[in-house]
Amino acid sequence: MRDKQNILIIGAGLCGSLLALRLGQRGFNVSVYEKRPDLRKVNINAGRSINLALSNRGIKAMKLVGLDSKVKQLCIPMNGRMIHDEKGNTFLSSYSGRDYEYINSISRADLNALLLTEAEKHENVVIHFNKKCESVNFEKTTALFKDYETNTQFIEDADVIIGTDGAGSALRKSYYLGKKFLFSFSQDYLTHGYKELCILPKGKNDFKIFKNALHIWPRGSFMLIALPNLDGSFTVTLFLSYNEGVYNFNGLNTDEKVLEFFKKEFPDALALMPNLLEDFNNNPTAPLGTVKCSPWHYKGNTLLMGDAAHAIVPFYGQGMNASFEDVVEFDNVLDKNLNNWKAIFETYEKSRKKDTDAIADLAIDNFYEMRDHVANPIFQEKRKLEMTLEKAFPNEYASKYALVTFNENLGYYEAMLKGRAQDKAILNLLSEGEINVNDDLRSILNKITKETQKILEEDNVAKLK
Amino acid sequence: MRDKQNILIIGAGLCGSLLALRLGQRGFNVSVYEKRPDLRKVNINAGRSINLALSNRGIKAMKLVGLDSKVKQLCIPMNGRMIHDEKGNTFLSSYSGRDYEYINSISRADLNALLLTEAEKHENVVIHFNKKCESVNFEKTTALFKDYETNTQFIEDADVIIGTDGAGSALRKSYYLGKKFLFSFSQDYLTHGYKELCILPKGKNDFKIFKNALHIWPRGSFMLIALPNLDGSFTVTLFLSYNEGVYNFNGLNTDEKVLEFFKKEFPDALALMPNLLEDFNNNPTAPLGTVKCSPWHYKGNTLLMGDAAHAIVPFYGQGMNASFEDVVEFDNVLDKNLNNWKAIFETYEKSRKKDTDAIADLAIDNFYEMRDHVANPIFQEKRKLEMTLEKAFPNEYASKYALVTFNENLGYYEAMLKGRAQDKAILNLLSEGEINVNDDLRSILNKITKETQKILEEDNVAKLK
Repeated sequence: MRDKQNILIIGAGLCGSLLALRLGQRGFNVSVYEKRPDLRKVNINAGRSINLALSNRGIKAMKLVGLDSKVKQLCIPMNGRMIHDEKGNTFLSSYSGRDYEYINSISRADLNALLLTEAEKHENVVIHFNKKCESVNFEKTTALFKDYETNTQFIEDADVIIGTDGAGSALRKSYYLGKKFLFSFSQDYLTHGYKELCILPKGKNDFKIFKNALHIWPRGSFMLIALPNLDGSFTVTLFLSYNEGVYNFNGLNTDEKVLEFFKKEFPDALALMPNLLEDFNNNPTAPLGTVKCSPWHYKGNTLLMGDAAHAIVPFYGQGMNASFEDVVEFDNVLDKNLNNWKAIFETYEKSRKKDTDAIADLAIDNFYEMRDHVANPIFQEKRKLEMTLEKAFPNEYASKYALVTFNENLGYYEAMLKGRAQDKAILNLLSEGEINVNDDLRSILNKITKETQKILEEDNVAKLK
Repeated sequence: MRDKQNILIIGAGLCGSLLALRLGQRGFNVSVYEKRPDLRKVNINAGRSINLALSNRGIKAMKLVGLDSKVKQLCIPMNGRMIHDEKGNTFLSSYSGRDYEYINSISRADLNALLLTEAEKHENVVIHFNKKCESVNFEKTTALFKDYETNTQFIEDADVIIGTDGAGSALRKSYYLGKKFLFSFSQDYLTHGYKELCILPKGKNDFKIFKNALHIWPRGSFMLIALPNLDGSFTVTLFLSYNEGVYNFNGLNTDEKVLEFFKKEFPDALALMPNLLEDFNNNPTAPLGTVKCSPWHYKGNTLLMGDAAHAIVPFYGQGMNASFEDVVEFDNVLDKNLNNWKAIFETYEKSRKKDTDAIADLAIDNFYEMRDHVANPIFQEKRKLEMTLEKAFPNEYASKYALVTFNENLGYYEAMLKGRAQDKAILNLLSEGEINVNDDLRSILNKITKETQKILEEDNVAKLK
């Protein structure tokens, strides 16, 4: 049904361009309006999220549109975290006990360009650049745009409008300001912000530090991470409080203070970044926010997808993956051949929202876990034990990280419930001395499985979510 | 310090008028601006929250300002819930096993009038009515008002501005729209709304049903409640989904449907309300929302208090009590003699926010508990057991409800942690047959205490909040 319907997509970022491609493949008439220029023609790198972590859920979406092998060429596998301690020592902590489970560093721009090009191969897909959505009349299913080229405004209508216009979504803002229905909405900022920096290549396509890892310099209340790029560079991100602690973004207001901070806390990273001050001064400090809202759709007229519906903090490396998974889930609902868009949107939101809420909460958990608990001996012991279990029982045991990152056929919500219960079980069994890393592994696994099950059952009896 | 400072309060509702009274008692120069007319001169009952439940935390605030005995005269004690089942049977379920623990029905208008009158007795307190706050310039500490009498606008400045202007706060809106700092904010609506109705007196000051109870007609996904008024009437509230289930507010769009609904579900209540249709048609259907935000203050200039900072749903009967407790907590911080308003506001928010977040979550818990679990045999068994324990060990056992409602010296956050763990312990001990209502009570109490402690410790090891 509905393959001749006109669909207007706001935003040609990662989610919008994938959605346009998929709906184009399904035969819909798709018009996409993007506020920025075509990133294939203009370098619009704004010093934010230059590369991203692509993992199983995102790859599943690439398979859906037949792009998995093309995308693979853009990927740099990262098999684990390379931890850089205060003394400059490094050690690799695998993401999984299974060799075939890893995450990938990928350039946002390269991936976005590929999706745009593939979408435009369909004659029923048209992408317009430099057209900023100002607001959406969700009752009339029309959107107001400003054309940055002619500096004029125009209105477009469509059978449905889908907003994939990111965390600052104009469609979501129209829902909020419209006050035509009860719109639940939250924006939650962490006390920390982030700033992107860069480790330049040693030579052409030559990496200054180990290529196949996500590098991390954990320092308690702040940290530095680095992800590799194909050209041999690393995109580095500093996560730091705006105004708390000895060092914070508000306080790092002179070159001297920035250098002092890096010399003291990240001397090895500083040695790799002669360009530090230039990057630090030129790149913005950006906030870390979570956005949730409901409903995502207005009747059968409009729908929010991707970051527009659920922006999350980056600490689980799942932002892009969650948005891509949205498209997979939406595609599944389209396969049901429901009668109308209202039924499609309702069915999609009902099945999807619990999962995007869960990954938002998991990402926040990880912020605190990385900040407060990584140095805790019992958390470290747990992580080591889990790697051993994954190696010994590859088909029986998966850590919370693996459930979330590598188990694309398990929803985020189920992964969260099981993963949290399992973490709690292990931490308590270790803490109470009921398991010991020298015990027989099978008996450890049995105890963990039993305790996890007990925790889930007890929560269920008490009706805790 | 600072007793000659000028404080501008936006909103002379329950929280604003109590705050004005207390700050007046402390010697500050207080100006209050209220958008509505003076409720002592005009009947402005809008069919919403005519009466409220006053309990220990609110009474503590009344004691602080020396009004507890005057307020007591406005109170009707409610010792428990009078439950009305589908067949018209009634039974009383006490709020506590201790006779001296009960909640009170009180008229919002009477209480507000008393607070206004007491505040105005201080010559350093001035209250202005019919002045609506349009916005606040929190950087300049000025507020823009519209005078409903002259239809003109004017600007007031002050040393500090405190917004006690309720769930729709103009100050909070200025924070949100100002985008001058990272403002975390959420508004969350339940799928249910509410509508107020009325059971008129039998004769003068004569009650048609039992006076000293909160009456409740639980019906699974919806319910009716009734609280007594001094004149012999009861204010009745229907809680019902907007659009889900066989009966819902959107569907009750003719007199016939309303009558059919009440005849089928609440025949005994219908018999008490010959005026049902008039009330149903005249009174608004209002949403049930939770508002949280942070920060409450901007530097030392402005501060949100009461519903403006934390609006909650009514299912714990704590909305007014929480707002009154805000004033007690703020007063405690003033006693610390900090150096400046910024330090005062920061200290207040830091100690207070965890508690108002907790009561917001507890109130939502109770919505689901009342809706989904009241009919669950194990929840009923738990409630019965807890009453027995409170009677047998009045100084040792307090249910979650008692911790929240009757333990005014325990913060909401601590009450939530302990109360939730205790609920989980009892439900699981009952479900696993590890305690039995016929066991020795002391041994039951010991098992519950031990299991509760274990749950708290295990959550702590896993760093769960």
